[in-house]
Amino acid sequence: MNPPGPSRWSIVHPHVTPATDGLLPGGFLASGVHAGIKPEGLDLGLIVSTEPETTSAARFTASSIVAAPVELCRRRTRLDAIRTIVANSGNANAATGNLGFEQAAKVQGAAGLVGGVREDQVAVASTGVIGVQLDGQKLIRGLTRANDELRRDGGGDFATAIRTTDAFPKQAAADVALPSGTVRITAQAKGAGMIQPGFATMLCFVQTDAALQAATADLLLGVCVKRSFERISVDGQLSTNDTVILQASGASGVAIAPESEDELRFGEALDAMLRDLALLIVRDGEGAARVGRIVVRGRDAEEVERAARAVANSPLVKTALHGGDPNWGRIAQAVGAALPGPPLPIDIAIEGMPVCRASAAGRFDLAELERAVQRDEVEYEVTLPGEGAETEVFFSDLGHGYVTINAEYTT
Amino acid sequence: MNPPGPSRWSIVHPHVTPATDGLLPGGFLASGVHAGIKPEGLDLGLIVSTEPETTSAARFTASSIVAAPVELCRRRTRLDAIRTIVANSGNANAATGNLGFEQAAKVQGAAGLVGGVREDQVAVASTGVIGVQLDGQKLIRGLTRANDELRRDGGGDFATAIRTTDAFPKQAAADVALPSGTVRITAQAKGAGMIQPGFATMLCFVQTDAALQAATADLLLGVCVKRSFERISVDGQLSTNDTVILQASGASGVAIAPESEDELRFGEALDAMLRDLALLIVRDGEGAARVGRIVVRGRDAEEVERAARAVANSPLVKTALHGGDPNWGRIAQAVGAALPGPPLPIDIAIEGMPVCRASAAGRFDLAELERAVQRDEVEYEVTLPGEGAETEVFFSDLGHGYVTINAEYTT
Repeated sequence: MNPPGPSRWSIVHPHVTPATDGLLPGGFLASGVHAGIKPEGLDLGLIVSTEPETTSAARFTASSIVAAPVELCRRRTRLDAIRTIVANSGNANAATGNLGFEQAAKVQGAAGLVGGVREDQVAVASTGVIGVQLDGQKLIRGLTRANDELRRDGGGDFATAIRTTDAFPKQAAADVALPSGTVRITAQAKGAGMIQPGFATMLCFVQTDAALQAATADLLLGVCVKRSFERISVDGQLSTNDTVILQASGASGVAIAPESEDELRFGEALDAMLRDLALLIVRDGEGAARVGRIVVRGRDAEEVERAARAVANSPLVKTALHGGDPNWGRIAQAVGAALPGPPLPIDIAIEGMPVCRASAAGRFDLAELERAVQRDEVEYEVTLPGEGAETEVFFSDLGHGYVTINAEYTT
Repeated sequence: MNPPGPSRWSIVHPHVTPATDGLLPGGFLASGVHAGIKPEGLDLGLIVSTEPETTSAARFTASSIVAAPVELCRRRTRLDAIRTIVANSGNANAATGNLGFEQAAKVQGAAGLVGGVREDQVAVASTGVIGVQLDGQKLIRGLTRANDELRRDGGGDFATAIRTTDAFPKQAAADVALPSGTVRITAQAKGAGMIQPGFATMLCFVQTDAALQAATADLLLGVCVKRSFERISVDGQLSTNDTVILQASGASGVAIAPESEDELRFGEALDAMLRDLALLIVRDGEGAARVGRIVVRGRDAEEVERAARAVANSPLVKTALHGGDPNWGRIAQAVGAALPGPPLPIDIAIEGMPVCRASAAGRFDLAELERAVQRDEVEYEVTLPGEGAETEVFFSDLGHGYVTINAEYTT
């Protein structure tokens, strides 16, 4: 399956141009090979920066039950100076105890040896089934081949190697015109299920040839993740393995100073790219046919967040979206349940059509509404009393495909 | 479809005997008729107590967006002295504004007139689609017929009249031997979707010919609801219409004094009956094939509740239950996500088999586990560090039937 076309919710900046030559930013090489974790297909990806002064930043799942590679990265990787990333699919190496941690550590060490990089500059990431021991030896054997196959146009193979239930690989590439010169940003992501709040990716890796101080990389990544991967949900399920890493090689010679116009423009480009990747993850939600955007306004930040998550994760709203059913009563139900208390007058609009005012049905053209909710992307707006806060969450529908994938995706 | 047989999680008391003669307790009459809210079938139920001194107690949804009949009952019904209950299916009369409230009020008034009962002793309940105006005139016309058809064995028709997506009617009847004499308790419930926390019934009506003070009825109902309907989830969705009402006619002449042995025994019987009805609702969860019970122990009350709800409402756990898949990694993931923080060592057992110790895979017989999770009822146990709290939640699986019902159950 090919990736879908542009989303109406993408952000377009005049200084950002899609890059179509398939090359990673200067200083980066990547590859993907079959290491035998999955029965077939690419399952081991490698990204390497050849620049010794590469800076980086990382974010991980907020879960208290984390995969071995996440624990390893937190404890044994210099997160501000990552040069090599080893990522596998087919096994999450989660709930695997000390043995799982040792496997991750061995993979980290082997990747350092093979690439001539310090061990603590190697990050490891895994995705796949939870609770099954990972055969680190398979990955170590695969690493030699992956190292041999590293190349400037290897991002596509890498993106393929980290897929699990993803229907299509998820990549983005752009050239960004900054006042100080042009830099490139590329990224690869995976995710289709077990996708939600605290921080919802599964995996995303971003490369740029801009020169960033590690603190700047950390700041920009933090802000952009909050506005992208933390605003999506496929099934409300925070993963044990969520990992996002930004690496900056500096190979372009364009340095981005803190609080400069360069930083602002670079941040805009990164923001737009991560938003697009987040949208791709939702659009590839397991078994999904449609994507919804719920916008909630009013009250305060905590309440709009609760209401938006309640709508985005309601199986009743999600099945209605799947069926192309304008059943806005389920939006009202979800908001009312999320915000218990005295009677709450809310307004609801679907695709700009007011369907509910002060918690009572409004007058609207049902035929027009029915057409609107059958499109690929459907927008819902909820207005709570008061002013102040606003938030959005993108979510996929709930269809038979989700049940089929998850009732049969076995240990 | 017939109701399923007994559940392993039912509680059996030697002083409680199932009643099989189909009769309501003394003082109660009921009926069900077709009023035309649904295209066909019974859709209007009526329960009447002939005893002027009938006491009662009620509980309603915690949602801030409540249906008109719930608002009406709260504002205009003497909840400690309900004699008549009018319940309809096919329309929830929710998100219907002032007009919806007026319809509910007219139905209340008409039921009072028809039955010769004070208006404020009539409770009204509705279930069905949200956001569509209810045609109260249809119900008022149906009420005359329903009143003519009232009879001691009318509980079955009433239970049928309140069904929506329920695959089978839900009833219970028992004779309870108390030190002061024998009393009967009967109950009718409905619910299959939009079933969860704060208070998860949709509708349940309980009758007894015991003589209860209203305060005793309220106390017993409150405790038993917490231990039954508040411990189940089909889809995590709190409804706008949840209503449970207990009526005590006193017709048996057996008075239950506060803090007496009678009260204890009666409470045990009521508790077991509501638990069975709650289990029936979960077992009839939309599209459900299996029921799970998650027990969480350790830490404190708030944390075991969060962890248990997270497991019960995880679409990944629910689809695994549906598929008969022993994918315990999804239990670990759900608990970890529900309790963010530093690494959390948890134990997991499925059907008594330890599968995970200190958040790492244990040794177990996979073939035996696979057989165990293919039964109709599957029990999961999670142990958090520390001692103190324990809770349980019963939940249905997530299958294709849920998607089919809810993608097509339209406005």
